[in-house]
Amino acid sequence: MNKYHYPSVAVDIILEKDDNLLLVLRKKDPFKGSLAIPGGFVNEGERVEDAARREMLEETNLNIELVDILGVYSAPNRDPRGHVVSIVFIAKIISGNVTAGDDADSFEWLSIADMIKNRRVAFDHIKIIEDYREWKKSKGTFWSSKQSE
Amino acid sequence: MNKYHYPSVAVDIILEKDDNLLLVLRKKDPFKGSLAIPGGFVNEGERVEDAARREMLEETNLNIELVDILGVYSAPNRDPRGHVVSIVFIAKIISGNVTAGDDADSFEWLSIADMIKNRRVAFDHIKIIEDYREWKKSKGTFWSSKQSE
Repeated sequence: MNKYHYPSVAVDIILEKDDNLLLVLRKKDPFKGSLAIPGGFVNEGERVEDAARREMLEETNLNIELVDILGVYSAPNRDPRGHVVSIVFIAKIISGNVTAGDDADSFEWLSIADMIKNRRVAFDHIKIIEDYREWKKSKGTFWSSKQSE
Repeated sequence: MNKYHYPSVAVDIILEKDDNLLLVLRKKDPFKGSLAIPGGFVNEGERVEDAARREMLEETNLNIELVDILGVYSAPNRDPRGHVVSIVFIAKIISGNVTAGDDADSFEWLSIADMIKNRRVAFDHIKIIEDYREWKKSKGTFWSSKQSE
C-alpha cells in the first residue's frame, strides 16, 4: 500500500456468464468473509488493462478479454487501508476454468439480485454492481458520486 | 510525483464547444510549448471527479459538469516524469469564462483536425483525441493499448 500521500490504483473486473457474476469470497482482511468482484493493485510500470488480465489469470485461472470500462471509483473511504482509486472493467472469458488462487478462498457465480439481497459484500461493490445493472440497460460510465438513474 | 513505486493518478478533461476543443499551451516542462488537454494530479483523499472539477476551475475558471469517462490511459512511458494513470473525462461548461491559471500560458479553442494536423501535442493526447473522435461516433470506452476502430 501507498503510505506517501498519493492514491493507490487498483482494477476490479466484472465477469458475467449465464446471468451470474463471478465473485470471490475473501479470505483476507479487509472484508474477510465477504464477497467481492475479483481485482487487485496495479504495479508501477504496468498498464491498467494488463493488470486486469494479470489479476484474473492469477486469481481465477481465466484468460479474459476486456469489453468496456464501467467506471472509476475513488471515494476516499471505500477501502479501509487507504485511498484506492479502482478502475472497473467489464470483461468476457476467452479461455480457462475458474480455480482458486492466492487471494481467495473460493469463487461463486451469483446473480446480481442474489448478490445484492443476500450476502455481505466488500468495499463499494454493491454500488459498482448497481451501476453495472444500469450499464446493461443503457451503457454509460460511472463514478463514486454519480447517481444511477 | 510519486517516488515510491506506485503509479500516480491524474485526470484530464475534454471540453468541446462549437466543434472546438479547449487546449492549454503548456508553460512548464514536460512538453513546454506544446498543446495539451487540461488536467492535473489527483490528491490523496480526493475523488477523481472532484479533481477534474477542481483542476478545470483552477486552470481555466470554468465550472464544468462531467458527462462521461472516455477512458483510462496508463502506458508507463506516456509521461516522462514517471508512471501516471490518467482518467479522461468528457465535460461540458456550466458557467464561467476561460482565463489563464497557474499551469498554462494561454488557452486555445482548436478543432480536432487542427489539433492533430498542425501542432505539437503533449503526452499521448493525440491518441486520446483520436479516441474521443471515435467516441463521438459510437461511444464506448478506451485505454492505452486499445485500438480505435
